Amino acid sequence: MTQLLDLLDQFTHQHDQNRLVYNQDWLANQRDLIFLGQRCGATAIVDDYGNVYLDFPGQINDQPVATGSHMDTVKYGGRYDGLYGVLGGFCAIQQLYEQHGIPKHPIRLISFSEEEGNRFLAAFTGSKYYTGTLQIEKLLDNQGITFDEARRLAVTQLQHLPYVKAQHVALPVTFTELHIEQGPRLAQNNKKIGLVTGIVAQNRYEVTVHGQANHAGTTPMAQRQDAIATASLLMTKLYALAADTAEDLTFTIGEIHVSPNVSNVVAESCRFTIDCRANTNDQLMTFVTKMLQLLEQSKRTSVIETLHVPATRLSDDLLTQNAALATQMNYSYQTLFSGAGHDSQIMSSFVPTTMIFVPSEAGISHAPAEYTKPADLLTGVTLLSASLFMQANGE
Amino acid sequence: MTQLLDLLDQFTHQHDQNRLVYNQDWLANQRDLIFLGQRCGATAIVDDYGNVYLDFPGQINDQPVATGSHMDTVKYGGRYDGLYGVLGGFCAIQQLYEQHGIPKHPIRLISFSEEEGNRFLAAFTGSKYYTGTLQIEKLLDNQGITFDEARRLAVTQLQHLPYVKAQHVALPVTFTELHIEQGPRLAQNNKKIGLVTGIVAQNRYEVTVHGQANHAGTTPMAQRQDAIATASLLMTKLYALAADTAEDLTFTIGEIHVSPNVSNVVAESCRFTIDCRANTNDQLMTFVTKMLQLLEQSKRTSVIETLHVPATRLSDDLLTQNAALATQMNYSYQTLFSGAGHDSQIMSSFVPTTMIFVPSEAGISHAPAEYTKPADLLTGVTLLSASLFMQANGE
Repeated sequence: MTQLLDLLDQFTHQHDQNRLVYNQDWLANQRDLIFLGQRCGATAIVDDYGNVYLDFPGQINDQPVATGSHMDTVKYGGRYDGLYGVLGGFCAIQQLYEQHGIPKHPIRLISFSEEEGNRFLAAFTGSKYYTGTLQIEKLLDNQGITFDEARRLAVTQLQHLPYVKAQHVALPVTFTELHIEQGPRLAQNNKKIGLVTGIVAQNRYEVTVHGQANHAGTTPMAQRQDAIATASLLMTKLYALAADTAEDLTFTIGEIHVSPNVSNVVAESCRFTIDCRANTNDQLMTFVTKMLQLLEQSKRTSVIETLHVPATRLSDDLLTQNAALATQMNYSYQTLFSGAGHDSQIMSSFVPTTMIFVPSEAGISHAPAEYTKPADLLTGVTLLSASLFMQANGE
Repeated sequence: MTQLLDLLDQFTHQHDQNRLVYNQDWLANQRDLIFLGQRCGATAIVDDYGNVYLDFPGQINDQPVATGSHMDTVKYGGRYDGLYGVLGGFCAIQQLYEQHGIPKHPIRLISFSEEEGNRFLAAFTGSKYYTGTLQIEKLLDNQGITFDEARRLAVTQLQHLPYVKAQHVALPVTFTELHIEQGPRLAQNNKKIGLVTGIVAQNRYEVTVHGQANHAGTTPMAQRQDAIATASLLMTKLYALAADTAEDLTFTIGEIHVSPNVSNVVAESCRFTIDCRANTNDQLMTFVTKMLQLLEQSKRTSVIETLHVPATRLSDDLLTQNAALATQMNYSYQTLFSGAGHDSQIMSSFVPTTMIFVPSEAGISHAPAEYTKPADLLTGVTLLSASLFMQANGE
């Protein structure tokens, strides 16, 4: 069982986790995963968006049960978000085959290309492509490289690896995603396992305040169109609005871009992002309506919606099955709602989907301090392995 | 008299004005200026900070009268800020020698290396080095290049040009700086010439708010240390404080830097700059005291002063002389106070110093839209030429 820890080390040799989709580190890891799967007897498949599928055989050659997560990270993220579900999924499958031999149905490990939306203004592109729900505009990263350019360059290299099949594959019969919680509840409640009932509704926006660049010393205050003055007031009002809204709403301004961003020049423009989430679509829409009204009152301010993901209810049946297994294996667990978006959110519209969480120390995630105890990582893998065994040997 | 317009074109062949100190465009222009001066009989001198001096002969070989300005620009600035004083100064000297022959005293044209403080966190480094008042810490630009590294690389190339003297030269007996107003007053009052009585007091600060990077969806709002939430509230309060203070105070937040600057990550840190100016030191200090008190109340917030320049009174004698010349030449003029900092502010502590302004259309500066009518540019040059003639033939 040290295999998981060794694999996590091997796949995170870089100190900063910067596997932005289609970059060099991302490519190296998807390639290494393909080699790893092929060495263990899996068929490796890569679709045109760089999703990697490792298909392990069943006694009957029908549609597989699947597990997995995403290979990309946020910029300067942690070691576990996404990667744990890919490598932990791999280890769970290995454990199953070693302990029980070939199951009735095949098992598929999926390493989705992209989920975080950090390189381009589009998130969940891997699972959305897989499920046929991706609509993508022309997107540029901050180096001016288009999504399609980056995608083709990287995916071609993966698809041309030996014995790799380049194709779009059919959906599995179920999907189970193993993931760190990314919040503090399991750790605070001293539980080993979280079983996810549903996933938050999530919208993202990009707000741009337009001003007029001018000299910081000679332009009278009354004659300025200072984009930062307007934007900071807007941001303050938005935070206050969020604080006055439903308790479980999260509201985050994570990115600010100023032009020309020079200390002695009145700002020409100030662009910032909004990430807001709530447990129900109604809660989120109530906030969003007020938020857009507030932004509309500001002159020279434009707003673009960059992400809209409705709240999702995951499979009750799979959750009940996993709860029974956890009880049987003597793992303390609780059911919870996920404040983070996940590929499971996309998958769940098409196949019965469930998620297994393990604790995040201090609830920290999307940061280098992200940490889960090795014993907790292994507990998650063992439960996943038992769950996959049940699913792959069922009717 | 089309020489000035041709020279401005030649020296601003790039669409964006990005002559940050010691960069390639800066180097090309200082080099071209040296060649230009040498072709017209000037001795070219370059000191260790890359200030370029073109010394034109007088009948008596004593200390020169001087004119000039700075060669650097702000990022994405305009065509005239700094450069007009250098090339306009050159044309004024040419006009003087052509019309009147060699004057009694020598004349020096100075092209200061740096005034804007845009590449490194230090401004006026050219004139401060010339006057022996520069104290410089180890500074890095946003590529991680040190000030000293950049300086040595660029200056060595200038100092090794043919017939260039590499030395520190003594101060001139007077200094006259020709500059665009960078504000709207001359244009609004329909005046051709501004004669500057003094220059604002100016302080700059860098404020950093420290937070804790975390997941934008899973971290409960009450448990966050969101650097942008704190910073935007601070910025809003600072703008309000500035609005409540003296009428002629200017207050600008021009730069914001967020880390990690990712839409779905709570910000780890948010750093912003403050540029504040007032006509008197007392007015500025009254505001700064309140400002620092406000910032001190904010936890996890640190403040560094990056620039402190007291208000300056320029030479009354030189202004009176220039006013008489303007009247004689039938140029409408007004006296005014400068809201922009200038090399003259540094020079005036050591030698009698004056400034001649020409109108800025719509008062726009530090932006690509910066514009002064050709006729107004030439009026400034003609007045400067007459002023230098008086000064270089006086006692």
